[in-house]
Amino acid sequence: MARVVVDVMLKPEILDPQGQAVQRALPRLGFDGITDVRQGKRFELEVEGPVDGDALARVRELAETFLANTVIEDFTVRVVEADGVERAVSGTQAPTEGATA
Amino acid sequence: MARVVVDVMLKPEILDPQGQAVQRALPRLGFDGITDVRQGKRFELEVEGPVDGDALARVRELAETFLANTVIEDFTVRVVEADGVERAVSGTQAPTEGATA
Repeated sequence: MARVVVDVMLKPEILDPQGQAVQRALPRLGFDGITDVRQGKRFELEVEGPVDGDALARVRELAETFLANTVIEDFTVRVVEADGVERAVSGTQAPTEGATA
Repeated sequence: MARVVVDVMLKPEILDPQGQAVQRALPRLGFDGITDVRQGKRFELEVEGPVDGDALARVRELAETFLANTVIEDFTVRVVEADGVERAVSGTQAPTEGATA
């Protein structure tokens, strides 16, 4: 069993009202030094068996067809490594290091 | 300018209807081998200046008081490193490696 993460964010050119609402509230809450806020979705998928090329290709297809609306959203598929580091392996933006699809 | 990510997920013991709805749809869509799906929120914050202890302490406080409802949600603060890897540095669950707060 391994965990694969799919992050779905609005494309940079798409207005992000939720992110803007958070950003506008920051000064009132006493938080400065944060120049932009973008809000999106995070999916944590528990994958059976090894996270190999086939499994990542399946997750990528799931992200492309179901989790993200690729007309207005970008997605990134990340593998969660032993030390908790999350490494992008595929997506509409991420460098496709060793990505199979 | 650097990017800091705050992930907000429902605590494991809290029912996740959105994640369950995605999971129940998977077989119908032809996706097998995914045993659990959890859905949460991802915030990408552009932080002015270096991402030092103070900046991370501010982001953690922001996550604790505003971005997450810590009664039912866990949050993780991640620093985005040069190669795009995201490393957890603070949060309600993540190992607090070198976290200042």
